[in-house]
Amino acid sequence: MNSIDLIVRGGTIYAADGHYRADIAVKDERIVAIGHAELFPRARTEVDATGLCVLPGLWHTHCHFREPGHTDKEDFTSGTRAAAAGGITFCIDMTNNTPHPSTLEDFQMKLGIAREKACVDFGLYGAGLYPDQIGKLAGAGAIGIKVFNTRHIKEVYPYISELGVLNHGLLYEIYEAVADTGLICSVHHDDPDWCRRMTFREYINVGKTENRHYMEAYEKGYMYGHGMVAGLAASLYYADLAGVSLYVLHLGVMPPGAYEMIRHAKVELGQEVYAELEISTALMTRKQAEKVGPCTYVWAYSPETAWDSLESGVTDVIVGEHAPHTVAEMEPGWKDNFSVPLGITGAQEFIPLMLTQVNNGTLRLEDLVWYCSESPARIFGVYPRKGTISIDADADFTIVDMNRRKILTGADMYTKSRTTSWEGMEVTGMPVYTIVRGEVVMRDGQILAQPGFGRFLPGKAASGA
Amino acid sequence: MNSIDLIVRGGTIYAADGHYRADIAVKDERIVAIGHAELFPRARTEVDATGLCVLPGLWHTHCHFREPGHTDKEDFTSGTRAAAAGGITFCIDMTNNTPHPSTLEDFQMKLGIAREKACVDFGLYGAGLYPDQIGKLAGAGAIGIKVFNTRHIKEVYPYISELGVLNHGLLYEIYEAVADTGLICSVHHDDPDWCRRMTFREYINVGKTENRHYMEAYEKGYMYGHGMVAGLAASLYYADLAGVSLYVLHLGVMPPGAYEMIRHAKVELGQEVYAELEISTALMTRKQAEKVGPCTYVWAYSPETAWDSLESGVTDVIVGEHAPHTVAEMEPGWKDNFSVPLGITGAQEFIPLMLTQVNNGTLRLEDLVWYCSESPARIFGVYPRKGTISIDADADFTIVDMNRRKILTGADMYTKSRTTSWEGMEVTGMPVYTIVRGEVVMRDGQILAQPGFGRFLPGKAASGA
Amino acid sequence: MNSIDLIVRGGTIYAADGHYRADIAVKDERIVAIGHAELFPRARTEVDATGLCVLPGLWHTHCHFREPGHTDKEDFTSGTRAAAAGGITFCIDMTNNTPHPSTLEDFQMKLGIAREKACVDFGLYGAGLYPDQIGKLAGAGAIGIKVFNTRHIKEVYPYISELGVLNHGLLYEIYEAVADTGLICSVHHDDPDWCRRMTFREYINVGKTENRHYMEAYEKGYMYGHGMVAGLAASLYYADLAGVSLYVLHLGVMPPGAYEMIRHAKVELGQEVYAELEISTALMTRKQAEKVGPCTYVWAYSPETAWDSLESGVTDVIVGEHAPHTVAEMEPGWKDNFSVPLGITGAQEFIPLMLTQVNNGTLRLEDLVWYCSESPARIFGVYPRKGTISIDADADFTIVDMNRRKILTGADMYTKSRTTSWEGMEVTGMPVYTIVRGEVVMRDGQILAQPGFGRFLPGKAASGA
Amino acid sequence: MNSIDLIVRGGTIYAADGHYRADIAVKDERIVAIGHAELFPRARTEVDATGLCVLPGLWHTHCHFREPGHTDKEDFTSGTRAAAAGGITFCIDMTNNTPHPSTLEDFQMKLGIAREKACVDFGLYGAGLYPDQIGKLAGAGAIGIKVFNTRHIKEVYPYISELGVLNHGLLYEIYEAVADTGLICSVHHDDPDWCRRMTFREYINVGKTENRHYMEAYEKGYMYGHGMVAGLAASLYYADLAGVSLYVLHLGVMPPGAYEMIRHAKVELGQEVYAELEISTALMTRKQAEKVGPCTYVWAYSPETAWDSLESGVTDVIVGEHAPHTVAEMEPGWKDNFSVPLGITGAQEFIPLMLTQVNNGTLRLEDLVWYCSESPARIFGVYPRKGTISIDADADFTIVDMNRRKILTGADMYTKSRTTSWEGMEVTGMPVYTIVRGEVVMRDGQILAQPGFGRFLPGKAASGA
Ligand SMILES: [Zn+2]
Ligand SMILES: [Zn+2]
Ligand SMILES: [Zn+2]
Ligand SMILES: [Zn+2]
Ligand SMILES: [Zn+2]
Ligand SMILES: [Zn+2]
Ligand SMILES: [Zn+2]
Ligand SMILES: [Zn+2]
Repeated sequence: MNSIDLIVRGGTIYAADGHYRADIAVKDERIVAIGHAELFPRARTEVDATGLCVLPGLWHTHCHFREPGHTDKEDFTSGTRAAAAGGITFCIDMTNNTPHPSTLEDFQMKLGIAREKACVDFGLYGAGLYPDQIGKLAGAGAIGIKVFNTRHIKEVYPYISELGVLNHGLLYEIYEAVADTGLICSVHHDDPDWCRRMTFREYINVGKTENRHYMEAYEKGYMYGHGMVAGLAASLYYADLAGVSLYVLHLGVMPPGAYEMIRHAKVELGQEVYAELEISTALMTRKQAEKVGPCTYVWAYSPETAWDSLESGVTDVIVGEHAPHTVAEMEPGWKDNFSVPLGITGAQEFIPLMLTQVNNGTLRLEDLVWYCSESPARIFGVYPRKGTISIDADADFTIVDMNRRKILTGADMYTKSRTTSWEGMEVTGMPVYTIVRGEVVMRDGQILAQPGFGRFLPGKAASGA
Repeated sequence: MNSIDLIVRGGTIYAADGHYRADIAVKDERIVAIGHAELFPRARTEVDATGLCVLPGLWHTHCHFREPGHTDKEDFTSGTRAAAAGGITFCIDMTNNTPHPSTLEDFQMKLGIAREKACVDFGLYGAGLYPDQIGKLAGAGAIGIKVFNTRHIKEVYPYISELGVLNHGLLYEIYEAVADTGLICSVHHDDPDWCRRMTFREYINVGKTENRHYMEAYEKGYMYGHGMVAGLAASLYYADLAGVSLYVLHLGVMPPGAYEMIRHAKVELGQEVYAELEISTALMTRKQAEKVGPCTYVWAYSPETAWDSLESGVTDVIVGEHAPHTVAEMEPGWKDNFSVPLGITGAQEFIPLMLTQVNNGTLRLEDLVWYCSESPARIFGVYPRKGTISIDADADFTIVDMNRRKILTGADMYTKSRTTSWEGMEVTGMPVYTIVRGEVVMRDGQILAQPGFGRFLPGKAASGA
Repeated sequence: MNSIDLIVRGGTIYAADGHYRADIAVKDERIVAIGHAELFPRARTEVDATGLCVLPGLWHTHCHFREPGHTDKEDFTSGTRAAAAGGITFCIDMTNNTPHPSTLEDFQMKLGIAREKACVDFGLYGAGLYPDQIGKLAGAGAIGIKVFNTRHIKEVYPYISELGVLNHGLLYEIYEAVADTGLICSVHHDDPDWCRRMTFREYINVGKTENRHYMEAYEKGYMYGHGMVAGLAASLYYADLAGVSLYVLHLGVMPPGAYEMIRHAKVELGQEVYAELEISTALMTRKQAEKVGPCTYVWAYSPETAWDSLESGVTDVIVGEHAPHTVAEMEPGWKDNFSVPLGITGAQEFIPLMLTQVNNGTLRLEDLVWYCSESPARIFGVYPRKGTISIDADADFTIVDMNRRKILTGADMYTKSRTTSWEGMEVTGMPVYTIVRGEVVMRDGQILAQPGFGRFLPGKAASGA
Repeated sequence: MNSIDLIVRGGTIYAADGHYRADIAVKDERIVAIGHAELFPRARTEVDATGLCVLPGLWHTHCHFREPGHTDKEDFTSGTRAAAAGGITFCIDMTNNTPHPSTLEDFQMKLGIAREKACVDFGLYGAGLYPDQIGKLAGAGAIGIKVFNTRHIKEVYPYISELGVLNHGLLYEIYEAVADTGLICSVHHDDPDWCRRMTFREYINVGKTENRHYMEAYEKGYMYGHGMVAGLAASLYYADLAGVSLYVLHLGVMPPGAYEMIRHAKVELGQEVYAELEISTALMTRKQAEKVGPCTYVWAYSPETAWDSLESGVTDVIVGEHAPHTVAEMEPGWKDNFSVPLGITGAQEFIPLMLTQVNNGTLRLEDLVWYCSESPARIFGVYPRKGTISIDADADFTIVDMNRRKILTGADMYTKSRTTSWEGMEVTGMPVYTIVRGEVVMRDGQILAQPGFGRFLPGKAASGA
């Protein structure tokens, strides 16, 4: 047994609580030793990480890879290639597909596709719609249950409409069922009745529908800001009553009231609630949004509150949502932005954007390890299998060069549309190796893994963890 | 000008912050002097209050006098006679009438009736249903706007259904309109979708509908406990956003989560929100509820939390709801309690019940003055015209004998059904005089005022206060 | 009994929680009626308060009238005349006399003098020095026990040195003894070891002793800022342990840490602790202090914190300390300010300064009533005998003209030195009548009462209240 | 370079945030690899840790090894042998020696002795007494500065008296000087004036001096409970003002007020303050104290508060003080316990006592790693050199058998007196190997290291960390 597969040599290893110089030995997909490489046996492969930072494989917890049903927008191969290029070793895919994975059969069908096409490891949300299916989805390996407590105000986004759970009785029964599985329940909160009334009254009914009008409505919290907070308010109460662990999605596009509600529930009441902050919204400016044109979820209402939420314990996971559409779908938004679907790109851009913030001193690389690796791995119940560089953990590494500069541009993107919401922004700090279970899947922007290499990681209910 | 109408002699005068011995002189409906009666001119009438406690006239802020439309249950004369017998000098009437006072015309029609029939002074809520009518209702003298953010789960209570505002867009527009008037917006919160699903699933669909089943469902918070809290959660957020002063009804039949939400909003966030505690629920026991039979809102989920809310500043006003029905309407509840309307009696019993608590040491008579007189007078914007014994205030007094004992029983009740939810309970402490604007309207349980004596008190928007 | 002594007619009566128009009838030193004067019998005297504000008699809780022993600085007649001129109806005198009222004999001797010379009513602190004398002082009518937990850093102020209680064992025994009496224990906190070391090291030892150096040392909290907070820190703990009600003196010349300590003790720990804010320090500027020359306690370290302490509940009583010295004693301070005694004037200036702030909108007249009348009367246990305009209360009134302007200047002062720390400041709002137990003791700045009119008010331990 | 010195094989490695199975390779005193031993080169020595728990070397932060000056009580060899037997790899020695290490010369003299006699690694406090020596002590390697803000009430403990800093001016100057070094300032707080007065008044002056009387005085907080809290109150304020990091000693023998003060300072005010909890006091019972006879610091006033302080973040380091004396010194305490010095044993017993609590479920082994290794290493500025099992850290390990039982008894103790305060107590969980920089210094209770093996670890000011 004393030959090994991979040595990562010369790097600085990062954990959530510090960093140190050491080399890493990998065998049979797992980390088998950490220390001075001189002591290790020879390896099949060596990665020279001299001058680089070696992070536990980073997660992207909010991917819409659009398969099955909408592969014109994205698919598991294009999406996970973008992720790999962006330094991501593990993706969690959302549920607004056609058909949506709300039944055992549809979940398994989707899993079959993903297994054949993914280039990095992945987990799948089960779609929370039918209380009696929740247990089956958990048994089939769902990593969590996603609920759309929303509906598009003009119903132009039908595969979300189908998944919309607005009736609080139904929502509660889903919470009860998820509580029984021990999984977390991730919810996109909303209050479409309110948003609809406000936007129709002040915009749509009076013919103000252009991109710039939409931006104005967004700024007022009509699309969808305040509605999301009101939805959250009731949901927090029901989640607590049902005993489910609530995982709040889309913090970042919610007004400050949402942060306070979560803080109150977590810190003062001791409720088990987690929050996923779309931290990239704190970097999106109105100017950038207007430049790239039709879009929906855009900038943070209060970037300061967003950043503060890292300090205050409100935020548990950070991400830059990846929700791509075709150019053709988005283009009409210049004239009627109220009728285009929700979208932004992020799988490939998220980590470079964050590394830039690390260089700016906004957060530390250790924080990135916490929010994008250890913390989600703990919340989703797969730590220390993933989420850490330690003995017997999966050999997933994101190796970054903190000095490399790049300008984000559509031509470099692996997402199907070859566009980016971050067009033209310069980043400092780039992932240079993405290593999954000991295999280099990305080196210097080149994807080396084949579709199907990525492996499905079942949630804790299925794995018995 | 130096003759006077009334002297109240020999009593101890109570304010919210203390008490003292003094006599009171009244002229032209107002208090004109407080001091030693020897100094006053002779009066047409004298009330000997020796050994008695003289409180500023107590309010009942939650009356359903059922007129127009449901005078088989109650009317303004029977209702205000019950109130006068119970030591109440001022009543606020709710809006679930037929027709309901949601338009200027219907409000004025109702006001016309009330003016002819009331025996004590009164204010009227306008019904919040049409945003464009709110300003008119305020102009016509509404003392506040009442919103039913509820619907009966079986729709057997149609005049509530008509008033139900569940759409949050509409609710918000009502809040905007009320904010413009400066009045408070009083809301009965609920989440009927949730309550309906829970009760149908576990009770109605499986044929468990008897009174005892209902009590079980009530105890679980299905009817309507938890739904009310969830409704409150979203409402607090929208009220703050709209800048309206929210007045939360029915605290007392809401689980402890409601108190915490209100505390958080008031104390930590500084939101302008008030709470009316149905304190009588803290005295209602399951045994008493089962004895008197079909009923709906009954006991406090946590009497301790209810009492604590006086200390903690959560509660601003206390009351014992008065929502009578006919015996014929309630009787089927023995078999199907889910199909009977919401009801309890309280106008005549509330003050005696509270005086008994004062004798028990649970609260002080000064507290009763605060919660039932000064505080509501301030919140509804008519202080110091009412709510205090001071110079130039209306000469409204509730004079109580703290030692008088009585057993509450239907035969003594002025409410039309001649029943009481408190049948058989012994009280210690009784109102012995109810004096409104210098006139004795009740003495030793006898009603001396004629219908029409009671005067309408317009809200602050109309009076320009 | 139906003739009366005094009517105050036409004024607006102020209480801590509001104001109203009414007239007042007085007989035998007490208020016998409030109302419309037309109803009252004729009176021996009438005061026309038309256009004026009638406040319950205002207190000055921190007077050093210097008698016995230092009557070159002040005496009970000059001091109480200054107070009467300043709208004060009740004074509390401090204890650093020669001899000091630390024994029953010396307390009674001092009381004998005060009774013959005072022009307004007064209370006397007993000096806390000998635990076994505390009970006797309380029995003789001390209104509270004053402790000097301090010593002058150069011991140039011998009558304070004698009273200095720095040993915490002794301090604690005094607290135990005061707790037994039920009186409050008022403490001037300090830590002279610290202050001495800092000032000697950086100022006195290096020859920097002029007025301007002192101001610098004051600004750094060496004289005596931080030392006072450290003294308070231990004292709060011992007071709680001994079960005594601590009344913290000199808030205003203590750094912000003191406010936070008091807030923490009061609000979070529920300790019975009160604070007297020298609010005038928030108005004293460095420029004014330099202009009037040698002084000691001067400006507030953080005026904002001082004002905020009214909102936050930290402060219970406000005052402008009156601690006069002779010009000859203070003059050497230009050269050696570290060797002059603690001093400032305030008895006559305090209320005009505060009325000016009311006119500026910084506080309301109702607040002044609370902090200078009702609140101290409650804390010192003599409410509602004093501290309120209500039936049977002492007929003490401070009647103010909110529009009268005046420039404060030494020539107008009744204090012996005919100087004022507030020289040259313009005030808007002046007391125009000071009425004590129905007698006008000051009218338009003229003192009408004779020495000996002022009556001693024993504390609650002696009066059995 | 590919031969190694030691392999620890088969154990479970514990960190503060979790544990995992792995082997450890050591070379040149440091950890060079962690992983599967099959991959490592052969080692000179192997330790079979199968079934055992491998912790980073545990610290004892509160040792009184009594040298120089009092070697009849203990010396560096006997003390560190006790520590090694108790699973301790690193000791911090206190300063009440003769002479005391308060000057550079005396510090260096002490260091010379310790270097020749210690069997485990150690740090030395510098004695805080002369402000101008603090910088020199830091430069010579002091790991922190220890201040005795105390004095024995009967001065029978002269080497403490000499070190007593009660004058707050001096205390503050020491704080200023320590702040300049960046070291922490560890303080034994007290208020001997208070303690003296209370104990003399109620015990010593009335002839009640026996051991049982002392216990009674202790229970009342006279010896020294409440005095310590009062000392802390002022010290916290001055430490904050001076900008020094305060490290509070002796939590555990302080009443609950001390915990609240620290919580308030740390959590609410954000002050940099640390607390060392003598957790063993939470296990000491009055019965045990009476059994072992004369002693001084004994049981926790509130064991519940002590344990809660781990949850609440008040406590940063736990320890069981080691302060031995000769039997002859303590024996007179049966008759006069107020005249014996402060003492208890703990170096050898502390870890077994804590492992017993881990087995009881009171805390986790991970918590022990935090409070006795990682946390002190961070606070004293030598992390990650010590305090963690990670690459390039010192190879210090405490290897424990959680199932081994033992009865603590004097005969097994290495302390000079061969006694233990814990006589007769049964423990479950024993250290079986103590390994310092790769050398096994204790195995199964046998000490294998020679005096002089233990190495001095200079503090961060000297090491430039
Ligand atoms: Zn999404
Ligand atoms: Zn979403
Ligand atoms: Zn109602
Ligand atoms: Zn209602
Ligand atoms: Zn003073
Ligand atoms: Zn003073
Ligand atoms: Zn010690
Ligand atoms: Zn100590």
